[in-house]
Amino acid sequence: MSLVIVGSIGLDSVSTPQGGVNEVLGGSAVYGAVAGSHFCPTYIVGVVGTDFPMDSLKMLQDNGVNLDGLVYKEGKTFRWIGKYNTWNRAETLRTDLNVFADFSPELPESCKCCKSLLLANIHPGLQLQVLNQISSYSHLACDTMNYWISLCPDELIQVLRRVDIVFMNEDEVRDWSGRRDIYSAARDVLALGPQWVIVKRGEYGSVAISSEYKFFAPAYPVEKVCDPTGAGDSFAGAFMAYLANFNLLKPALIKEAVRYGTILAALNVQDFSVRSISAIARAEIDLLKDNLVKWTS
Amino acid sequence: MSLVIVGSIGLDSVSTPQGGVNEVLGGSAVYGAVAGSHFCPTYIVGVVGTDFPMDSLKMLQDNGVNLDGLVYKEGKTFRWIGKYNTWNRAETLRTDLNVFADFSPELPESCKCCKSLLLANIHPGLQLQVLNQISSYSHLACDTMNYWISLCPDELIQVLRRVDIVFMNEDEVRDWSGRRDIYSAARDVLALGPQWVIVKRGEYGSVAISSEYKFFAPAYPVEKVCDPTGAGDSFAGAFMAYLANFNLLKPALIKEAVRYGTILAALNVQDFSVRSISAIARAEIDLLKDNLVKWTS
Repeated sequence: MSLVIVGSIGLDSVSTPQGGVNEVLGGSAVYGAVAGSHFCPTYIVGVVGTDFPMDSLKMLQDNGVNLDGLVYKEGKTFRWIGKYNTWNRAETLRTDLNVFADFSPELPESCKCCKSLLLANIHPGLQLQVLNQISSYSHLACDTMNYWISLCPDELIQVLRRVDIVFMNEDEVRDWSGRRDIYSAARDVLALGPQWVIVKRGEYGSVAISSEYKFFAPAYPVEKVCDPTGAGDSFAGAFMAYLANFNLLKPALIKEAVRYGTILAALNVQDFSVRSISAIARAEIDLLKDNLVKWTS
Repeated sequence: MSLVIVGSIGLDSVSTPQGGVNEVLGGSAVYGAVAGSHFCPTYIVGVVGTDFPMDSLKMLQDNGVNLDGLVYKEGKTFRWIGKYNTWNRAETLRTDLNVFADFSPELPESCKCCKSLLLANIHPGLQLQVLNQISSYSHLACDTMNYWISLCPDELIQVLRRVDIVFMNEDEVRDWSGRRDIYSAARDVLALGPQWVIVKRGEYGSVAISSEYKFFAPAYPVEKVCDPTGAGDSFAGAFMAYLANFNLLKPALIKEAVRYGTILAALNVQDFSVRSISAIARAEIDLLKDNLVKWTS
């Protein structure tokens, strides 16, 4: 089994209280694919410009990320410049969509069937476009954000109706439903069709909610956060890549997926770009996951 | 075994988005003792005025709360008027200390030995005064608040040096240590002597931290919060009353204590005053606790 991730690929310049980096590898699909690569083969579907650095390409390949779905387009790669004053929210200083502006995702033949799919945070119209290209996928998931919830709720509803798993931050699921209580809010999303809503709560961890089950996981303790960029994407990538190894979304597997997502998110925030999620062995990840089990049960 | 709780006893007038109540039974010792009464005999040590309602006295007795340590003093009972606009923080509209102004806690003979002690949130000087009266207690715990941390840190340090367990909100433990990360902050408290710091995080649950262990519990899901007043006191009362049944503070017992604290706090916020924590059977509490285990492990 394998995981296809459709999303952004870019060069990020980030400044945090721990320092800063300039034009390093980033984007939702990148974080998701590198985090997921510890659990199953991952395929990235996205677009980069002709200025995309060779060493970033090599880094993705070295991490076992399949690049069949990577489109090279004349022009500049997507760029994001952001700053964290607190850890809770990034302040976007500048976004240059560049070749990502008219990204129209096309799945290559190698990605069209028998895979798990993670639609990272992109326009719901593009997410629908991908859903229309697939056949016989095992698990379908989407991430989203407040921006799309207010900008194009109708297209987002169409996406939600067609996926099994939805990733949302707690403020997003609240905005979506207009309810303060995340459990009632999650039920509104489940009513559209998904089997699970994964509510991410930043430093407080996450809750996986289905119509019959709940599962709570705290965030893994991190004493020194370096850069939160991509934490949610790493979570979702690891979560979906772990599940890609199984056919059914049984609650016991969802729990393990949440734990692995938690670990990759915690690793991710400890360094810039994908440095800390690429430079870790699966055995180490499992040790951290075992700690999480010990501290919660 | 039994639990002695020293703290405030008062009449609260509270207004929340769910409604309001006028001069209902409240105070940290009351919430703690009623929540704790499901697990062991509880003794309340505090002061009330001659206007203290008979039906409130009866309610405490009906819940098995021992009143040997209750002092009746000429004058009016402590009163608090508060309002919640959001669930995270109460806005105090008025505090009338009344007979509580010169409260000087005296343990009656029946409370002087062989008990667990919870020093609820009162002036650290008074907490010390109680600690100087006891002998051969099994477990000693204190609660505190930001106000005392800034007002009388030296007396608070003396209290912290003499207790086994400290209850703090996450902002309090951060204020105390000046560290953003609660794990490092908790270590600063542990360095003074306590075996466990219980960091309460409101709707996100709590973390029990010792030098060797951590234990995370989410808040029990509550879809409709009525009144958060006393949630922390109910948590601490149930936690300490459960532990009062055992001699050693083993990690497995701390986990169960956190879970029971979590359940009583969640029950507490579902109605005004102590209504929902007094009107519940132990079997029901255990069912809720079993849910918590299921949803986290």
